[in-house]
Amino acid sequence: MDIDSPTVLVFGAGNFGSCLADHLGDSSHTVLMWSRSEDTVREFNKHHRNPEVLQDHVFPQCITAIGPEFPSQDVVRSVNVLLFAIPTEGIREILTALKPKLDDKSLPLMIFVNKGIEIKTHALTLEIIADTCGPDIAKVATFISGPSFAKEILKRQPTSVSVASLSHEHAERASQLFHQPWFRCYTGDDPIGLELAGALKNVYAIAAGMSDGLGFENNTRAMLITRGLAEMTRIGTAYGASPLTFLTLAGVGDLFLTCSSSTSRNYTVGYRLGKGETLDYIIKTLGSVAEGVTTAKALRTVIANLGVKAPIATGVYEVLYEGKDVGERAKSLMSLPPIRELDFPECAGRPAQKLMEKLELCR
Amino acid sequence: MDIDSPTVLVFGAGNFGSCLADHLGDSSHTVLMWSRSEDTVREFNKHHRNPEVLQDHVFPQCITAIGPEFPSQDVVRSVNVLLFAIPTEGIREILTALKPKLDDKSLPLMIFVNKGIEIKTHALTLEIIADTCGPDIAKVATFISGPSFAKEILKRQPTSVSVASLSHEHAERASQLFHQPWFRCYTGDDPIGLELAGALKNVYAIAAGMSDGLGFENNTRAMLITRGLAEMTRIGTAYGASPLTFLTLAGVGDLFLTCSSSTSRNYTVGYRLGKGETLDYIIKTLGSVAEGVTTAKALRTVIANLGVKAPIATGVYEVLYEGKDVGERAKSLMSLPPIRELDFPECAGRPAQKLMEKLELCR
Repeated sequence: MDIDSPTVLVFGAGNFGSCLADHLGDSSHTVLMWSRSEDTVREFNKHHRNPEVLQDHVFPQCITAIGPEFPSQDVVRSVNVLLFAIPTEGIREILTALKPKLDDKSLPLMIFVNKGIEIKTHALTLEIIADTCGPDIAKVATFISGPSFAKEILKRQPTSVSVASLSHEHAERASQLFHQPWFRCYTGDDPIGLELAGALKNVYAIAAGMSDGLGFENNTRAMLITRGLAEMTRIGTAYGASPLTFLTLAGVGDLFLTCSSSTSRNYTVGYRLGKGETLDYIIKTLGSVAEGVTTAKALRTVIANLGVKAPIATGVYEVLYEGKDVGERAKSLMSLPPIRELDFPECAGRPAQKLMEKLELCR
Repeated sequence: MDIDSPTVLVFGAGNFGSCLADHLGDSSHTVLMWSRSEDTVREFNKHHRNPEVLQDHVFPQCITAIGPEFPSQDVVRSVNVLLFAIPTEGIREILTALKPKLDDKSLPLMIFVNKGIEIKTHALTLEIIADTCGPDIAKVATFISGPSFAKEILKRQPTSVSVASLSHEHAERASQLFHQPWFRCYTGDDPIGLELAGALKNVYAIAAGMSDGLGFENNTRAMLITRGLAEMTRIGTAYGASPLTFLTLAGVGDLFLTCSSSTSRNYTVGYRLGKGETLDYIIKTLGSVAEGVTTAKALRTVIANLGVKAPIATGVYEVLYEGKDVGERAKSLMSLPPIRELDFPECAGRPAQKLMEKLELCR
């Protein structure tokens, strides 16, 4: 792969896909951006604006929108980087369509920026890649996550992210591709931890919003974020991730951003629940899905299977799906007996072990 | 010690000392609060208000102010808990005066809530205790730290803190003393990490303020807090603390609170520097000392002795003490080469080892 002048194919023309296409286009890469919407493709190529998102922004000339048909084998084999910026629920379908078009002898660098757990299977994206493309591709897949509002990336506000892969070499390559003076990349080797952090943080953002909605102040929010981080770390460690991954930009960085911004959809769901609105009404009026609402449901099963204590996530679930009173749940959280602060399982958990077996890697 | 009805002597009648006296008084403990100010003692006992701080608040009747003379041996031996809520710079003097009055056969539970590094010696409070009271008292000393604005504790806003001691039993006792439905205590065994986190966070709060003052937005602040946390963790690990302690309420919790509140003095110093004011003018007009300004100086020596990389703390030092331009420092931070995200020294560092030797403990 010629890393000096890569051509990038971005799957997805939403908020984050568009802003990353913009970032890479501005960094003198050639970028193709695939959209399922014929209108978006036509409008984008005519006016260099995305009619659906970030409407105020004029994109660089070196970005070409393609679609709505799935990219052909020729197009797929003409690029050396594939960037997946579509919801996790769509990843399995895209990868299944993509696999036959890949040249196994000259694989592109594959970078995933989606966050979340597949609802039906509770699989992480790393597992979906293994299922659809095989272990060899999953072993070198790279993942990017961190505190990065799309609008601020467009403005070249200083931003930093975590880049993780089971292959250090591939993490380095993805880092080099994205790294700019306004966009720093930090590499790591725990994609499972990075993925879990990105998915789980949305549930804790709902909890932080609830606290603010109930009228609690700074001490309480700092407590919730910290205990939420400890809970995420406990779940992650039981799953088989490294606890230290939760100290990264993809962990505490993104948690902090999501929990302290009123523009975060997940925070807003929690805030409005705290103010006494019903979930049905909030979902009806919010205009877009808050991932934390679905993740909270998947997480309940994950937590039960792991056998870890997760009182905050459980409280969020009970408010969202069992009609429990949000103020009463907050009160009962505070009434738990005093405990040791850090209480992580000692060894890697079964889910990560099983995933490593699927990847033909032993840890 | 009768833990069911303890009598507490609080050293210090400042913001935090008063609010903790109030918390303990409200939890049906008998509380003595020592102040060096004759006026404060007289006014407090007459009106149950502190004329210096938290003036709007009426304190419980069970709190008696004493002073300005140092508490007598009889008073010291009549209580079973000593709570130290004075600045770190005053701890050595107080403990030196206190030691001869202690009954070695029936030691009180000693709890420290001060934060910071002693300027001249760069010693942590644990070391000051060992120097003045001997290793046996240091080994059972307990430390409390966490995201806890005094005004919100007075309002019984839900608050949680970390409680650490080398003695698990003593950490449990301190936790039981403070624990209430509105005030949760989490125990741990790494007082060195807890102390370092409490001191260092103020330097990173200055950096977060600088970023906001320069006009940077959410991505940048989340990045600074996260990279600041990684830097604190690296320094702490090199010192000999556990990296996981930086995940606690005393670590990330207090860092988050201090960095995201415009009422924090350290954040304000950074913010005004970012806006272009000079340090001299800020200090002259701020009305009170921001601990981070002095900690940044002590930290420079600590960092040099440990040989760890700490670009954010170094940048803060250079702006504060070498007249470097804050915008230029921010730019050069972003221009560092890409690196691995988590890069902690493998084993406990020399400073903690030396301290453990002083405490006659081997790790």
